[in-house]
Amino acid sequence: MSIETVVAPLAGRQAKPAGSIVRVGGVEIGGTAVVVFAGPCAVENEEQILSAARAVKAAGARVLRGGAYKPRTSPYSFPGLKADGLRLLALARAETGLPVVTEVMDARHLEQVLACADILQVGSRNMQNVTLLEEVGKCRVPVLLKRGMSATLAEHLLAAEHVMKGGNGQVILCERGIRTFEPSTRNTLDLGAVPMLKRHTHLPVIVDPSHGTGLAWMVPSMACAAVAAGADGLLIEVHGHPARALSDGGQALTFEEFAGAMIRIGAVASAIGRSLA
Amino acid sequence: MSIETVVAPLAGRQAKPAGSIVRVGGVEIGGTAVVVFAGPCAVENEEQILSAARAVKAAGARVLRGGAYKPRTSPYSFPGLKADGLRLLALARAETGLPVVTEVMDARHLEQVLACADILQVGSRNMQNVTLLEEVGKCRVPVLLKRGMSATLAEHLLAAEHVMKGGNGQVILCERGIRTFEPSTRNTLDLGAVPMLKRHTHLPVIVDPSHGTGLAWMVPSMACAAVAAGADGLLIEVHGHPARALSDGGQALTFEEFAGAMIRIGAVASAIGRSLA
Amino acid sequence: MSIETVVAPLAGRQAKPAGSIVRVGGVEIGGTAVVVFAGPCAVENEEQILSAARAVKAAGARVLRGGAYKPRTSPYSFPGLKADGLRLLALARAETGLPVVTEVMDARHLEQVLACADILQVGSRNMQNVTLLEEVGKCRVPVLLKRGMSATLAEHLLAAEHVMKGGNGQVILCERGIRTFEPSTRNTLDLGAVPMLKRHTHLPVIVDPSHGTGLAWMVPSMACAAVAAGADGLLIEVHGHPARALSDGGQALTFEEFAGAMIRIGAVASAIGRSLA
Amino acid sequence: MSIETVVAPLAGRQAKPAGSIVRVGGVEIGGTAVVVFAGPCAVENEEQILSAARAVKAAGARVLRGGAYKPRTSPYSFPGLKADGLRLLALARAETGLPVVTEVMDARHLEQVLACADILQVGSRNMQNVTLLEEVGKCRVPVLLKRGMSATLAEHLLAAEHVMKGGNGQVILCERGIRTFEPSTRNTLDLGAVPMLKRHTHLPVIVDPSHGTGLAWMVPSMACAAVAAGADGLLIEVHGHPARALSDGGQALTFEEFAGAMIRIGAVASAIGRSLA
Repeated sequence: MSIETVVAPLAGRQAKPAGSIVRVGGVEIGGTAVVVFAGPCAVENEEQILSAARAVKAAGARVLRGGAYKPRTSPYSFPGLKADGLRLLALARAETGLPVVTEVMDARHLEQVLACADILQVGSRNMQNVTLLEEVGKCRVPVLLKRGMSATLAEHLLAAEHVMKGGNGQVILCERGIRTFEPSTRNTLDLGAVPMLKRHTHLPVIVDPSHGTGLAWMVPSMACAAVAAGADGLLIEVHGHPARALSDGGQALTFEEFAGAMIRIGAVASAIGRSLA
Repeated sequence: MSIETVVAPLAGRQAKPAGSIVRVGGVEIGGTAVVVFAGPCAVENEEQILSAARAVKAAGARVLRGGAYKPRTSPYSFPGLKADGLRLLALARAETGLPVVTEVMDARHLEQVLACADILQVGSRNMQNVTLLEEVGKCRVPVLLKRGMSATLAEHLLAAEHVMKGGNGQVILCERGIRTFEPSTRNTLDLGAVPMLKRHTHLPVIVDPSHGTGLAWMVPSMACAAVAAGADGLLIEVHGHPARALSDGGQALTFEEFAGAMIRIGAVASAIGRSLA
Repeated sequence: MSIETVVAPLAGRQAKPAGSIVRVGGVEIGGTAVVVFAGPCAVENEEQILSAARAVKAAGARVLRGGAYKPRTSPYSFPGLKADGLRLLALARAETGLPVVTEVMDARHLEQVLACADILQVGSRNMQNVTLLEEVGKCRVPVLLKRGMSATLAEHLLAAEHVMKGGNGQVILCERGIRTFEPSTRNTLDLGAVPMLKRHTHLPVIVDPSHGTGLAWMVPSMACAAVAAGADGLLIEVHGHPARALSDGGQALTFEEFAGAMIRIGAVASAIGRSLA
Repeated sequence: MSIETVVAPLAGRQAKPAGSIVRVGGVEIGGTAVVVFAGPCAVENEEQILSAARAVKAAGARVLRGGAYKPRTSPYSFPGLKADGLRLLALARAETGLPVVTEVMDARHLEQVLACADILQVGSRNMQNVTLLEEVGKCRVPVLLKRGMSATLAEHLLAAEHVMKGGNGQVILCERGIRTFEPSTRNTLDLGAVPMLKRHTHLPVIVDPSHGTGLAWMVPSMACAAVAAGADGLLIEVHGHPARALSDGGQALTFEEFAGAMIRIGAVASAIGRSLA
């Protein structure tokens, strides 16, 4: 199904031709400024998340990301610190003032997650977990909805419609790479999704170049490309010591690399008449 | 990740080199006989499910399928009759004696679904819904685990490992077509998945040619091909009046078509030294 | 583009509703009998091709395959014996009486290839080499047209139309696996292509399970599945010593494996009312 | 095969760590400046190609593109003006001074094409037409080698190696979108290919956002994104009257749209420390 033919009265562009802005902790997502969400893939310990929060804030990130509940392909991989991870995210928020985005995997965790999250992330594996979409649709906090690994743009938009039908209009869509035949990158980052979604929905659209490539050295270039394509924000993995990360270290930037990337990203944003938030 | 490299101590073939058999209501799945699961995509009303149950039983099906909770791409599509659908499935089971497989979308529905289901289906959209996999892993009924739309075989196997790690060893894997560039069929049925999975896991492997093609006229041929490839069973959509179906009518066989297909399927099963259960 | 919408007045089913039969050396492709084409990926030396020709004939193959001109991904891979390979194929044909299919990569080689080939193969890499299609369209020998690695069925059919527009109606289509995200097999064999093509074209359709899987142990199962799906023939790689093959040894059957596979294939053919030619 | 593992002694980055520059008519491709190749998909008539050549030159393009030999999916589509098209390209070159890139589909056309082309294009359908690669490898003009529709980056690099092994080191690689499951765009533009290729080869890498999206309105955004990702150039379709184009009109920019896009592209180039050539 092409996105042209989707029936989405709530998420479709025609519902709000001027575009919608999602507000969280003084940050506007979907406005002129490009908003960077950054932090580690998973919360690992207090020192790790606090140092990362400070570093990404200093470099210009406006939202802290960090996983507490981690859906993993293998049951033998690190599943996240769960409640302890949420507590550490709350600490990092308290210290830095950065709003927090973290994943909710299960409706039964919602109350717990809501106690510390400013934005609820629904991950790629759950993009069509319909009851979870319905539950976050009943919440009153923004939802960051990642595209499924092989979801069409039509399906991504309809997943947002599921959330909005529950009453929650604060949805942010996130392109994070799709499954293709190409083995050199973890996923194929589909930057054409940015203008295509922006044309067909009023919702903000951000890009995750970390999952989109799986390779830290590619992240700055692809982050710049995402901004040039019109993305309203970026979701970037940053870790104090990528080689020691418990999850996805190969795609995490060091603090220094992230600071350098932000300068390049800011220059591209300016070139297209935007700025970094 | 190639399936060769997967670490799956519970689901991997080495755990049970002779293969495992899942038993339900006198039926053995994974043995010499090929087991056919059939019925409508969605339960719609009493007459519909009872007539379908009688017809598929008469033609040789050994398990009744029917959806009560339906995860749908659009929030405006028919979501299933939910609790009422479960009740009607229980009626059909009582009348025909056929065990029932139906989908569970949410851990919070488990108690309700378990009251009527003999086999719990985890659908493609939820193949990596980790907490749902963990919950069905705590149950003591067989689980039919469909491959995700773009799940690799390695990921499919690891999803089974998630279930088995919870203590439930009765898992049936189901190939149902994958996402590719080809637009002429709804999905591309990957029959190579059958021998590949059978080599790397001891679990039974069945095939759903209805979702795998999306076209009723293709189902009999592809069902025969699946059996020839070594499938332990088939999941086939059958509806009394496909043109009036509330869900996926284009891929449902009529009762007559299903009866005809069963004869062809039985002949192929015999040719490779198996039989219809 | 779906195959439903293709304009193919020559290749389309409506041009010959009863189906067309391609005849070569007393063999009919597209009739009731299933025709097996077998032999090594590449002709390597006289002993190799003669022993293979004898073995596949003894096991029931009716056409000998063997590559003399080999298009290779890397310029450092074995490119085939070229003219010498053609000469050896002619020898094998003379000794066994089997008609020969071999690839033509370039219109400038046509005269040379025609001197020894009974069927011209156009390979996957050249499925949209339009001038080559036009040139083989001017020949009066059958053409085996393999599906491109990511060609849709619509494109495959239109490639046949290119050949037929030149005046050559003897085209055989060959499904040989497509590019997908799945890394466990070399390609994903799309057996749904068989009934779909048969519905939309009158041309015979065969299947290459060797390239379709890349794994010799999968070939017999998938060959049986192809026949069950309705294939008019099979293209199977066979080599006296697969481990020493100069090209694609991992997917070649030994003589014994091929003989065993033929028995299984024959049984499935009988089950669906066909036979081995 | 991942590009990491490719053996390409000529095309690999290690052969020329500083990168190579392809020079044509005073233009340097692969240097600091970003070079824009623009013009119609197909040459249609004198007025069309001359007006397009003037317009793209005025807006800053440095190379004129235009197809004379057009490989088409259907034999009933416009195949290009062939020799007449080449003659018109020569006229446009003479008038504007712009070097010309045009496709060569067949080695037998080389002499004719070389008489008017400054750069030989090998199209996506022919990326693995090995004998054509070998023939252009014997020429002494630059070769623009487009990625095949489902070619991996490893295969793209090895196709360049085929050309270079013949003695022609002037190869430009072009990303033009790949086949995926997403139906909303004609192809999925894989901008990650740009940094990945640049890391593994010294050859210049350009991007074709016209074929990469199939939609004119997306071209300016994706052109900017390509430059931000590090592309050395762009290949953009421009037509005086897209609605009347004989080929691919839906993806062609008007003269005005192209001029506007060039301003945006130039701004992004400046932001990353480059310029428009």
